[in-house]
Amino acid sequence: MSEYPQVPRTTPARNPQRVTYDRVAVHAVLDEAVVCHVGFVVDGRPVVLPQLHARVGDVLYLHGSTGARALRAAEDGGLAVCVTVTLVDGLVLARSGFNSSVNYRSVVAHGLAAVVDDVAEKEAALDALVDAVVPGRAAAVRRPSRRELAATTVLRLPLEEVSLKVRSGPPRDEPEDLVLPVWAGVLPLATGAGEPVPDPELPAGTPVPEHVRTWARPAP
Amino acid sequence: MSEYPQVPRTTPARNPQRVTYDRVAVHAVLDEAVVCHVGFVVDGRPVVLPQLHARVGDVLYLHGSTGARALRAAEDGGLAVCVTVTLVDGLVLARSGFNSSVNYRSVVAHGLAAVVDDVAEKEAALDALVDAVVPGRAAAVRRPSRRELAATTVLRLPLEEVSLKVRSGPPRDEPEDLVLPVWAGVLPLATGAGEPVPDPELPAGTPVPEHVRTWARPAP
Repeated sequence: MSEYPQVPRTTPARNPQRVTYDRVAVHAVLDEAVVCHVGFVVDGRPVVLPQLHARVGDVLYLHGSTGARALRAAEDGGLAVCVTVTLVDGLVLARSGFNSSVNYRSVVAHGLAAVVDDVAEKEAALDALVDAVVPGRAAAVRRPSRRELAATTVLRLPLEEVSLKVRSGPPRDEPEDLVLPVWAGVLPLATGAGEPVPDPELPAGTPVPEHVRTWARPAP
Repeated sequence: MSEYPQVPRTTPARNPQRVTYDRVAVHAVLDEAVVCHVGFVVDGRPVVLPQLHARVGDVLYLHGSTGARALRAAEDGGLAVCVTVTLVDGLVLARSGFNSSVNYRSVVAHGLAAVVDDVAEKEAALDALVDAVVPGRAAAVRRPSRRELAATTVLRLPLEEVSLKVRSGPPRDEPEDLVLPVWAGVLPLATGAGEPVPDPELPAGTPVPEHVRTWARPAP
Protein backbone atom coordinates (compact mmCIF):
# COMPACT_ATOMS: atom_id res chain seq x y z
CA MET A 1 0.00 0.00 0.00
CA SER A 2 1.69 3.19 -1.12
CA GLU A 3 -1.16 5.54 -0.21
CA TYR A 4 -3.62 5.83 2.65
CA PRO A 5 -7.21 5.58 1.38
CA GLN A 6 -9.06 8.85 0.90
CA VAL A 7 -12.17 8.81 3.11
CA PRO A 8 -14.72 11.55 3.88
CA ARG A 9 -12.92 12.57 7.06
CA THR A 10 -9.62 13.04 5.23
CA THR A 11 -11.09 14.93 2.28
CA PRO A 12 -10.15 18.59 2.69
CA ALA A 13 -12.68 21.42 2.71
CA ARG A 14 -10.32 23.69 0.80
CA ASN A 15 -7.30 23.49 -1.51
CA PRO A 16 -7.54 19.79 -2.41
CA GLN A 17 -4.49 20.14 -4.66
CA ARG A 18 -2.41 20.57 -1.51
CA VAL A 19 -3.43 17.22 -0.03
CA THR A 20 -1.67 13.90 -0.46
CA TYR A 21 -2.14 10.43 1.00
CA ASP A 22 1.35 9.19 0.16
CA ARG A 23 2.60 6.93 2.95
CA VAL A 24 6.28 7.81 2.63
CA ALA A 25 5.54 11.54 2.71
CA VAL A 26 3.16 11.16 5.66
CA HIS A 27 5.70 9.12 7.61
CA ALA A 28 8.49 11.64 6.97
CA VAL A 29 6.41 14.43 8.51
CA LEU A 30 5.37 12.35 11.52
CA ASP A 31 9.00 11.34 12.08
CA GLU A 32 10.37 14.88 11.78
CA ALA A 33 7.99 16.47 14.30
CA VAL A 34 8.98 16.45 17.97
CA VAL A 35 5.44 16.89 19.29
CA CYS A 36 1.94 16.26 18.02
CA HIS A 37 -1.39 17.73 19.09
CA VAL A 38 -3.99 15.20 20.17
CA GLY A 39 -7.65 16.17 20.09
CA PHE A 40 -10.41 14.26 21.84
CA VAL A 41 -13.90 14.99 23.11
CA VAL A 42 -14.87 15.40 26.76
CA ASP A 43 -18.54 16.10 27.59
CA GLY A 44 -19.12 17.01 23.96
CA ARG A 45 -16.38 19.65 24.03
CA PRO A 46 -13.00 19.47 22.29
CA VAL A 47 -9.71 19.13 24.18
CA VAL A 48 -6.34 19.50 22.42
CA LEU A 49 -3.10 18.63 24.23
CA PRO A 50 0.51 18.36 23.07
CA GLN A 51 1.97 14.89 23.33
CA LEU A 52 5.01 12.93 22.25
CA HIS A 53 4.54 10.43 19.48
CA ALA A 54 6.50 7.67 17.77
CA ARG A 55 5.63 5.97 14.53
CA VAL A 56 6.36 2.26 14.17
CA GLY A 57 5.28 1.15 10.70
CA ASP A 58 1.62 2.09 10.43
CA VAL A 59 1.09 2.54 14.15
CA LEU A 60 1.42 5.83 16.01
CA TYR A 61 2.21 5.53 19.72
CA LEU A 62 1.23 8.46 21.93
CA HIS A 63 2.49 9.44 25.35
CA GLY A 64 1.45 12.35 27.51
CA SER A 65 -1.15 13.45 30.02
CA THR A 66 -4.73 13.22 28.83
CA GLY A 67 -6.88 13.10 31.97
CA ALA A 68 -8.58 10.21 33.68
CA ARG A 69 -11.73 10.32 31.62
CA ALA A 70 -9.92 10.09 28.29
CA LEU A 71 -7.83 7.23 29.59
CA ARG A 72 -10.94 5.35 30.73
CA ALA A 73 -12.33 5.69 27.21
CA ALA A 74 -9.02 4.53 25.78
CA GLU A 75 -9.11 1.46 28.03
CA ASP A 76 -12.72 0.87 27.13
CA GLY A 77 -12.47 0.03 23.46
CA GLY A 78 -10.87 3.20 22.20
CA LEU A 79 -10.73 6.96 22.50
CA ALA A 80 -11.72 8.82 19.33
CA VAL A 81 -8.78 11.09 18.57
CA CYS A 82 -7.52 13.42 15.89
CA VAL A 83 -3.74 13.63 15.94
CA THR A 84 -2.25 16.57 14.08
CA VAL A 85 1.41 17.28 13.41
CA THR A 86 2.49 20.55 11.83
CA LEU A 87 5.90 21.61 10.57
CA VAL A 88 6.24 25.29 9.67
CA ASP A 89 8.74 25.59 6.82
CA GLY A 90 8.54 29.27 6.02
CA LEU A 91 6.62 32.52 6.08
CA VAL A 92 5.15 33.41 2.69
CA LEU A 93 5.28 37.17 2.27
CA ALA A 94 3.04 38.25 -0.58
CA ARG A 95 2.42 41.80 -1.74
CA SER A 96 -1.03 41.68 -0.13
CA GLY A 97 -2.13 40.35 3.22
CA PHE A 98 -4.75 38.28 1.44
CA ASN A 99 -2.17 36.23 -0.47
CA SER A 100 0.30 36.02 2.41
CA SER A 101 0.57 32.53 3.80
CA VAL A 102 2.73 29.98 5.53
CA ASN A 103 4.65 27.11 3.99
CA TYR A 104 3.89 24.05 6.05
CA ARG A 105 3.46 20.30 6.12
CA SER A 106 0.65 19.04 8.29
CA VAL A 107 -0.50 15.48 8.91
CA VAL A 108 -3.96 14.78 10.31
CA ALA A 109 -4.77 11.26 11.53
CA HIS A 110 -8.21 10.15 12.76
CA GLY A 111 -8.95 6.98 14.65
CA LEU A 112 -9.47 5.17 17.91
CA ALA A 113 -6.56 5.24 20.33
CA ALA A 114 -6.34 2.26 22.70
CA VAL A 115 -4.23 1.70 25.78
CA VAL A 116 -1.27 -0.61 25.18
CA ASP A 117 -1.58 -3.43 27.72
CA ASP A 118 0.91 -5.94 26.37
CA VAL A 119 4.15 -5.43 28.30
CA ALA A 120 6.49 -6.27 25.42
CA GLU A 121 4.65 -3.92 23.04
CA LYS A 122 4.66 -1.20 25.70
CA GLU A 123 8.38 -1.54 26.31
CA ALA A 124 9.08 -1.41 22.57
CA ALA A 125 6.77 1.61 22.22
CA LEU A 126 8.56 3.46 25.04
CA ASP A 127 11.92 2.79 23.35
CA ALA A 128 10.43 4.10 20.11
CA LEU A 129 9.16 7.21 21.92
CA VAL A 130 12.62 7.91 23.35
CA ASP A 131 14.27 7.34 19.97
CA ALA A 132 11.64 9.42 18.16
CA VAL A 133 12.74 12.47 20.15
CA VAL A 134 16.48 11.70 20.11
CA PRO A 135 17.49 8.89 17.73
CA GLY A 136 19.97 6.59 19.43
CA ARG A 137 18.96 7.62 22.94
CA ALA A 138 17.04 4.48 23.95
CA ALA A 139 20.22 2.38 23.83
CA ALA A 140 22.03 4.89 26.06
CA VAL A 141 19.64 5.14 29.01
CA ARG A 142 18.74 2.82 31.88
CA ARG A 143 16.00 0.30 31.01
CA PRO A 144 12.56 0.96 32.48
CA SER A 145 11.77 -0.82 35.72
CA ARG A 146 8.61 -2.83 36.17
CA ARG A 147 7.23 -0.06 38.35
CA GLU A 148 7.96 2.57 35.69
CA LEU A 149 6.33 0.46 32.98
CA ALA A 150 3.21 0.11 35.12
CA ALA A 151 3.15 3.85 35.84
CA THR A 152 3.28 4.86 32.18
CA THR A 153 0.34 4.92 29.81
CA VAL A 154 0.96 4.54 26.10
CA LEU A 155 -1.79 4.85 23.52
CA ARG A 156 -1.77 3.05 20.19
CA LEU A 157 -3.37 4.63 17.11
CA PRO A 158 -3.44 2.58 13.90
CA LEU A 159 -2.70 4.87 10.95
CA GLU A 160 -5.71 4.37 8.69
CA GLU A 161 -7.49 7.68 8.05
CA VAL A 162 -4.51 9.91 7.35
CA SER A 163 -3.79 12.86 5.11
CA LEU A 164 -0.94 15.31 4.54
CA LYS A 165 -1.48 18.91 3.50
CA VAL A 166 1.47 20.85 2.08
CA ARG A 167 1.95 24.44 1.04
CA SER A 168 5.32 25.25 -0.51
CA GLY A 169 6.96 27.68 -2.87
CA PRO A 170 6.80 31.42 -3.44
CA PRO A 171 3.81 33.70 -2.86
CA ARG A 172 1.02 33.61 -5.43
CA ASP A 173 0.18 37.27 -5.92
CA GLU A 174 -2.55 38.86 -8.01
CA PRO A 175 -1.02 39.76 -11.42
CA GLU A 176 -1.82 43.45 -10.87
CA ASP A 177 0.06 43.41 -7.53
CA LEU A 178 3.39 42.39 -9.09
CA VAL A 179 4.24 46.00 -9.91
CA LEU A 180 3.81 47.17 -6.31
CA PRO A 181 7.02 48.32 -4.58
CA VAL A 182 6.68 45.64 -1.90
CA TRP A 183 9.36 43.07 -1.12
CA ALA A 184 7.90 39.60 -1.54
CA GLY A 185 9.28 36.15 -1.01
CA VAL A 186 9.68 33.44 1.58
CA LEU A 187 11.41 33.57 4.93
CA PRO A 188 12.47 29.96 5.62
CA LEU A 189 12.04 28.73 9.18
CA ALA A 190 13.64 25.72 10.83
CA THR A 191 14.05 24.17 14.25
CA GLY A 192 17.64 24.06 15.39
CA ALA A 193 19.48 22.80 18.43
CA GLY A 194 21.69 24.99 20.60
CA GLU A 195 24.66 23.95 22.73
CA PRO A 196 23.84 20.97 24.98
CA VAL A 197 23.48 22.03 28.65
CA PRO A 198 24.94 19.34 30.91
CA ASP A 199 22.96 18.34 33.98
CA PRO A 200 24.44 20.01 37.11
CA GLU A 201 24.88 16.54 38.65
CA LEU A 202 26.98 15.30 35.74
CA PRO A 203 30.71 14.75 36.51
CA ALA A 204 32.78 17.50 34.89
CA GLY A 205 34.30 16.52 31.57
CA THR A 206 31.67 13.90 30.68
CA PRO A 207 31.75 13.93 26.88
CA VAL A 208 28.57 14.82 24.98
CA PRO A 209 27.56 11.66 23.08
CA GLU A 210 27.20 11.67 19.32
CA HIS A 211 23.42 11.18 19.39
CA VAL A 212 23.18 14.50 21.26
CA ARG A 213 25.89 16.39 19.32
CA THR A 214 24.43 15.50 15.92
CA TRP A 215 20.73 15.94 16.70
CA ALA A 216 18.96 17.65 13.82
CA ARG A 217 15.54 17.83 12.22
CA PRO A 218 15.16 16.51 9.60
CA ALA A 219 17.55 13.74 10.63
CA PRO A 220 21.08 14.23 9.25
CA MET B 1 -7.00 41.17 36.21
CA SER B 2 -3.53 39.69 36.34
CA GLU B 3 -4.61 36.04 36.15
CA TYR B 4 -7.20 34.08 34.22
CA PRO B 5 -9.63 32.35 36.57
CA GLN B 6 -8.99 28.69 37.28
CA VAL B 7 -12.04 26.69 36.20
CA PRO B 8 -12.63 22.90 36.00
CA ARG B 9 -11.71 22.81 32.31
CA THR B 10 -8.37 24.53 32.95
CA THR B 11 -7.44 22.46 36.00
CA PRO B 12 -4.76 19.97 34.93
CA ALA B 13 -5.04 16.22 35.42
CA ARG B 14 -1.33 15.97 36.23
CA ASN B 15 1.58 18.12 37.45
CA PRO B 16 -0.48 21.07 38.77
CA GLN B 17 2.75 22.78 39.87
CA ARG B 18 3.57 23.31 36.19
CA VAL B 19 0.39 25.27 35.49
CA THR B 20 -0.09 29.02 35.67
CA TYR B 21 -2.91 31.39 34.80
CA ASP B 22 -0.73 34.50 34.63
CA ARG B 23 -1.99 36.76 31.84
CA VAL B 24 1.39 38.21 30.87
CA ALA B 25 2.98 34.76 30.63
CA VAL B 26 0.02 33.38 28.65
CA HIS B 27 0.13 36.29 26.23
CA ALA B 28 3.88 35.92 25.68
CA VAL B 29 3.44 32.29 24.59
CA LEU B 30 0.49 33.07 22.31
CA ASP B 31 2.46 35.92 20.74
CA GLU B 32 5.63 33.88 20.20
CA ALA B 33 3.96 30.96 18.43
CA VAL B 34 3.52 31.15 14.65
CA VAL B 35 0.69 28.61 14.48
CA CYS B 36 -1.89 27.23 16.86
CA HIS B 37 -3.88 24.00 16.76
CA VAL B 38 -7.65 24.44 16.84
CA GLY B 39 -9.81 21.55 17.99
CA PHE B 40 -13.54 21.30 17.43
CA VAL B 41 -16.16 18.56 17.27
CA VAL B 42 -17.82 17.29 14.09
CA ASP B 43 -20.42 14.50 14.42
CA GLY B 44 -19.17 13.82 17.93
CA ARG B 45 -15.61 13.27 16.70
CA PRO B 46 -12.61 15.55 17.27
CA VAL B 47 -10.95 17.54 14.49
CA VAL B 48 -7.65 19.36 15.02
CA LEU B 49 -6.30 21.75 12.39
CA PRO B 50 -3.36 24.16 12.35
CA GLN B 51 -4.36 27.80 12.02
CA LEU B 52 -2.86 31.25 12.26
CA HIS B 53 -3.78 33.31 15.28
CA ALA B 54 -3.36 36.85 16.55
CA ARG B 55 -3.95 38.07 20.06
CA VAL B 56 -5.45 41.52 20.55
CA GLY B 57 -5.80 42.16 24.26
CA ASP B 58 -7.91 39.32 25.60
CA VAL B 59 -9.24 38.24 22.22
CA LEU B 60 -7.68 35.59 20.02
CA TYR B 61 -8.44 35.89 16.31
CA LEU B 62 -8.18 32.71 14.24
CA HIS B 63 -7.77 32.29 10.51
CA GLY B 64 -7.54 29.11 8.48
CA SER B 65 -9.65 26.46 6.85
CA THR B 66 -12.12 24.69 9.12
CA GLY B 67 -14.78 23.23 6.86
CA ALA B 68 -18.29 24.38 6.11
CA ARG B 69 -19.92 22.70 9.05
CA ALA B 70 -17.63 24.28 11.63
CA LEU B 71 -18.15 27.67 10.02
CA ARG B 72 -21.92 27.27 10.16
CA ALA B 73 -21.66 26.56 13.87
CA ALA B 74 -19.37 29.57 14.29
CA GLU B 75 -21.95 31.74 12.50
CA ASP B 76 -24.70 30.24 14.57
CA GLY B 77 -23.86 31.43 18.04
CA GLY B 78 -20.42 29.95 18.37
CA LEU B 79 -18.22 26.95 17.67
CA ALA B 80 -16.87 25.21 20.78
CA VAL B 81 -13.11 25.17 20.32
CA CYS B 82 -9.98 24.29 22.19
CA VAL B 83 -7.02 26.30 20.91
CA THR B 84 -3.61 24.97 21.89
CA VAL B 85 -0.24 26.59 21.26
CA THR B 86 2.97 24.72 22.08
CA LEU B 87 6.55 25.98 22.06
CA VAL B 88 9.22 23.30 22.42
CA ASP B 89 12.18 24.80 24.28
CA GLY B 90 14.41 21.79 24.70
CA LEU B 91 14.83 18.05 24.92
CA VAL B 92 15.33 16.83 28.48
CA LEU B 93 17.73 13.91 28.43
CA ALA B 94 17.58 12.03 31.71
CA ARG B 95 19.54 8.92 32.64
CA SER B 96 16.36 6.85 32.23
CA GLY B 97 13.70 6.95 29.56
CA PHE B 98 11.10 7.29 32.29
CA ASN B 99 12.48 10.64 33.48
CA SER B 100 13.28 11.94 30.01
CA SER B 101 11.02 14.79 28.99
CA VAL B 102 10.62 17.91 26.94
CA ASN B 103 10.90 21.50 28.08
CA TYR B 104 7.90 23.32 26.69
CA ARG B 105 5.39 26.09 27.18
CA SER B 106 1.84 25.27 26.15
CA VAL B 107 -1.27 27.43 26.31
CA VAL B 108 -4.72 25.84 26.17
CA ALA B 109 -7.76 28.08 25.64
CA HIS B 110 -11.36 26.86 25.70
CA GLY B 111 -14.37 28.80 24.49
CA LEU B 112 -16.85 29.62 21.79
CA ALA B 113 -15.40 31.00 18.56
CA ALA B 114 -17.68 33.26 16.57
CA VAL B 115 -17.42 34.62 13.04
CA VAL B 116 -16.35 38.27 12.91
CA ASP B 117 -19.02 40.10 10.92
CA ASP B 118 -18.16 43.73 11.66
CA VAL B 119 -16.05 44.97 8.74
CA ALA B 120 -13.88 47.31 10.82
CA GLU B 121 -13.13 44.60 13.39
CA LYS B 122 -12.41 42.12 10.60
CA GLU B 123 -10.00 44.48 8.87
CA ALA B 124 -8.19 45.17 12.16
CA ALA B 125 -8.09 41.44 12.90
CA LEU B 126 -6.57 40.68 9.49
CA ASP B 127 -3.90 43.33 10.09
CA ALA B 128 -3.24 41.76 13.48
CA LEU B 129 -2.96 38.32 11.85
CA VAL B 130 -0.41 39.60 9.31
CA ASP B 131 1.57 41.36 12.05
CA ALA B 132 1.38 38.35 14.37
CA VAL B 133 3.34 36.33 11.83
CA VAL B 134 5.71 39.11 10.74
CA PRO B 135 5.61 42.22 12.95
CA GLY B 136 5.59 45.34 10.79
CA ARG B 137 4.32 43.55 7.71
CA ALA B 138 0.73 44.85 7.70
CA ALA B 139 1.94 48.41 7.02
CA ALA B 140 4.05 47.19 4.07
CA VAL B 141 1.45 45.31 2.05
CA ARG B 142 -1.48 46.34 -0.13
CA ARG B 143 -4.70 46.91 1.81
CA PRO B 144 -7.39 44.23 1.45
CA SER B 145 -10.05 44.85 -1.17
CA ARG B 146 -13.72 44.62 -0.35
CA ARG B 147 -13.84 41.34 -2.27
CA GLU B 148 -10.93 39.92 -0.28
CA LEU B 149 -12.49 40.96 3.01
CA ALA B 150 -15.73 39.23 2.03
CA ALA B 151 -13.83 36.07 0.98
CA THR B 152 -12.00 35.75 4.30
CA THR B 153 -13.43 34.24 7.46
CA VAL B 154 -11.99 35.30 10.79
CA LEU B 155 -13.05 33.73 14.07
CA ARG B 156 -13.01 35.54 17.40
CA LEU B 157 -12.33 33.66 20.64
CA PRO B 158 -12.54 35.62 23.89
CA LEU B 159 -9.72 34.51 26.21
CA GLU B 160 -11.54 33.42 29.35
CA GLU B 161 -10.75 29.78 30.17
CA VAL B 162 -7.01 29.78 29.64
CA SER B 163 -4.04 28.05 31.21
CA LEU B 164 -0.30 27.76 30.58
CA LYS B 165 1.71 24.65 31.35
CA VAL B 166 5.49 24.93 31.54
CA ARG B 167 8.28 22.41 31.99
CA SER B 168 11.77 23.86 32.28
CA GLY B 169 15.15 23.11 33.73
CA PRO B 170 17.38 20.04 33.93
CA PRO B 171 16.26 16.40 34.11
CA ARG B 172 14.92 15.12 37.42
CA ASP B 173 16.57 11.72 37.76
CA GLU B 174 16.11 9.08 40.43
CA PRO B 175 18.85 9.59 43.05
CA GLU B 176 20.22 6.10 42.40
CA ASP B 177 20.55 6.87 38.67
CA LEU B 178 22.96 9.77 39.19
CA VAL B 179 25.95 7.43 39.31
CA LEU B 180 25.15 5.85 35.92
CA PRO B 181 27.68 6.61 33.15
CA VAL B 182 25.02 8.30 31.01
CA TRP B 183 25.31 11.86 29.70
CA ALA B 184 22.32 13.86 30.93
CA GLY B 185 21.21 17.40 30.35
CA VAL B 186 19.11 19.56 28.08
CA LEU B 187 19.41 20.09 24.36
CA PRO B 188 17.88 23.55 23.76
CA LEU B 189 15.71 23.93 20.66
CA ALA B 190 14.65 27.11 18.92
CA THR B 191 12.98 28.23 15.73
CA GLY B 192 15.24 30.29 13.53
CA ALA B 193 14.93 32.07 10.20
CA GLY B 194 17.15 31.34 7.24
CA GLU B 195 18.11 33.66 4.39
CA PRO B 196 15.05 35.35 2.83
CA VAL B 197 14.23 33.90 -0.61
CA PRO B 198 13.05 36.69 -2.94
CA ASP B 199 10.00 36.03 -5.09
CA PRO B 200 11.08 35.19 -8.68
CA GLU B 201 8.91 38.09 -9.91
CA LEU B 202 10.70 40.63 -7.70
CA PRO B 203 12.92 43.15 -9.57
CA ALA B 204 16.59 42.27 -8.98
CA GLY B 205 18.22 44.29 -6.23
CA THR B 206 15.02 45.00 -4.29
CA PRO B 207 16.30 45.42 -0.73
CA VAL B 208 15.04 43.07 1.97
CA PRO B 209 13.07 45.24 4.41
CA GLU B 210 14.01 45.43 8.07
CA HIS B 211 10.87 43.64 9.26
CA VAL B 212 12.00 40.61 7.23
CA ARG B 213 15.74 40.85 8.00
CA THR B 214 15.22 41.10 11.77
CA TRP B 215 12.44 38.51 12.15
CA ALA B 216 13.03 36.41 15.26
CA ARG B 217 11.08 34.45 17.86
CA PRO B 218 10.86 35.58 20.58
CA ALA B 219 10.73 39.11 19.09
CA PRO B 220 14.13 40.90 19.24
